[in-house]
Amino acid sequence: MPVGTQATVKALSAEDISSTGARMVIMNTYHLWLRPGAEVVQDQGGLHEFSRFRGGIVTDSGGFQAFSLAARTKLSEDGFEFSSHIDGKRLLLSPEEAMRVQAALGSDVAMQLDVCAPGQAPRAEVLAALERTTRWASRCLAARDPKQAVFGIIQGGSEVDLRLRHMEELSALPFDGLALGGFSVGEPPETMHRTLAQVAPLLDPERIHYLMGVGTPRDLVRAIGQGIDLFDCVMPTRNARNGQAFVRTGRLVIRNAKYRLDHRVLDESCDCQACAGGYSRAYLRHLYIAGEILAHRLLSLHNLRFYGRLVQDARAAILAGSYEAFAHERLAELGS
Amino acid sequence: MPVGTQATVKALSAEDISSTGARMVIMNTYHLWLRPGAEVVQDQGGLHEFSRFRGGIVTDSGGFQAFSLAARTKLSEDGFEFSSHIDGKRLLLSPEEAMRVQAALGSDVAMQLDVCAPGQAPRAEVLAALERTTRWASRCLAARDPKQAVFGIIQGGSEVDLRLRHMEELSALPFDGLALGGFSVGEPPETMHRTLAQVAPLLDPERIHYLMGVGTPRDLVRAIGQGIDLFDCVMPTRNARNGQAFVRTGRLVIRNAKYRLDHRVLDESCDCQACAGGYSRAYLRHLYIAGEILAHRLLSLHNLRFYGRLVQDARAAILAGSYEAFAHERLAELGS
Repeated sequence: MPVGTQATVKALSAEDISSTGARMVIMNTYHLWLRPGAEVVQDQGGLHEFSRFRGGIVTDSGGFQAFSLAARTKLSEDGFEFSSHIDGKRLLLSPEEAMRVQAALGSDVAMQLDVCAPGQAPRAEVLAALERTTRWASRCLAARDPKQAVFGIIQGGSEVDLRLRHMEELSALPFDGLALGGFSVGEPPETMHRTLAQVAPLLDPERIHYLMGVGTPRDLVRAIGQGIDLFDCVMPTRNARNGQAFVRTGRLVIRNAKYRLDHRVLDESCDCQACAGGYSRAYLRHLYIAGEILAHRLLSLHNLRFYGRLVQDARAAILAGSYEAFAHERLAELGS
Repeated sequence: MPVGTQATVKALSAEDISSTGARMVIMNTYHLWLRPGAEVVQDQGGLHEFSRFRGGIVTDSGGFQAFSLAARTKLSEDGFEFSSHIDGKRLLLSPEEAMRVQAALGSDVAMQLDVCAPGQAPRAEVLAALERTTRWASRCLAARDPKQAVFGIIQGGSEVDLRLRHMEELSALPFDGLALGGFSVGEPPETMHRTLAQVAPLLDPERIHYLMGVGTPRDLVRAIGQGIDLFDCVMPTRNARNGQAFVRTGRLVIRNAKYRLDHRVLDESCDCQACAGGYSRAYLRHLYIAGEILAHRLLSLHNLRFYGRLVQDARAAILAGSYEAFAHERLAELGS
């Protein structure tokens, strides 16, 4: 899922998003709650009508941003009490409020409010986070809008026993999907994949498996092999705005002098609007160096299409029963 | 013509530009000469290949920017000697260099190097500017690339006798089109239209008439009535980036609170990507206030389509022999 923080995937229209093959996006409850306000989006008929994106829309719970972006955040059993980073207003994001706001936003999938404990936090902190997350899980489900799917978020940091315990607790609840939170928040990738290999294969096969905030193309290829269905990550669009294009063999830094006279498109085999449109690396380099918005848009279209093709290819390999060979080939190609 | 300063109309792809009905754009010699360099564009096969825009491309001569943007500019009979605003490099933009650079850029129409005397400059300054422009006109034509059309630029400020004298001098030269420069550079609109009414109808009817740097929708309706064929102006795209949308009855300032819950598109009768795509005023307002790039793109698409429809309607009215009624109706609608 591309990330559409403020009800827009940066630099792209709804038609652009669909052109990359993305069938779902994630939008941010915290940002939209503060601006333009959930009541504005609800008045417009919800995020689909508002943003014109016709695919699926997941909203996160807002907890992560209330913790990382807001000021003077106090975490208690009630929820996150914080000051808006926009106007300083004091607000409480409780499990019930997170569900109310997401229902007003009208997403297809609401995420439970959780407490994120990073992979390298002390065990006691990780434990406290997951216990509170379980209590909040029940409160979220009690407050759910029956029109929305709701996913639980499994915490537990890099501690496999805690992950498995939390998985068991949340799997007992009537969630429509199970997400793995607290990964890719600073721990080495190998730590994440080691934990994932011991946890993800045990997830309830009847429910959707969502690995939050991940990741690089390598991360996706490996995690899909462990049974993950759904990802979200700002990397394709953020890297685009920083002038990085994903290609089969890694990444291309468009401002490099070697592209100054390069007539080639980013990737001859790519059918994104930038490559199919014939925009050369030399032109993209010029746009990027000149600070032109079109560089962000074309590179975002390309990177999201790269991710879109990667997961389409992965799906085809799974259906063909050849995922292992596919993963082996792609990981070798991508390098480290 | 939309303005594509750095070989891109800000926020729009080549396909976007065409979707507005624009069949020509103007790009800036000064900017492209300095960055990425004319040799880069030439190596790519010229501006059409570089930018992927398949319509007509005019390049200006670079003189205006050498005067207004560059540092330590010295004007002499040789040309404009100046320091690049990017790297401080000392450069000479002579009539011959202006033609050489524009030939390398590969535009369809090259503009002669001229000396712009604003409408309110003292008569002696206006006179000196037009005399030098005539001398440079001959030098430009001597240095022309036979593959390019070349337009002369008539100066003379707001002094009708000087305008007519200069028109006569330049009309005697084998230019493919005649432009009127030095308008819309600070003088009141009424002053421009008064001068235009006495000058434009006398332009050689066998050549294209181009009014440079103009203007508002009102300006276009009035100037077309005086026989002007071609315009360029940053207004539709610059105003878009400042949150202004053109509508039949004037301008809509999208950040205004009254659009907070407005479900309507900018203009129900408009077929631009923003209006046909169903993006509401409330959503555009949100995007604009949130600083999202998509606001710039959607408003630019709308405003250029507004201008595109205006000139398409004007053309139809001319062909139908009803331009006077058309102009009367549109000017009344647009207000002052």
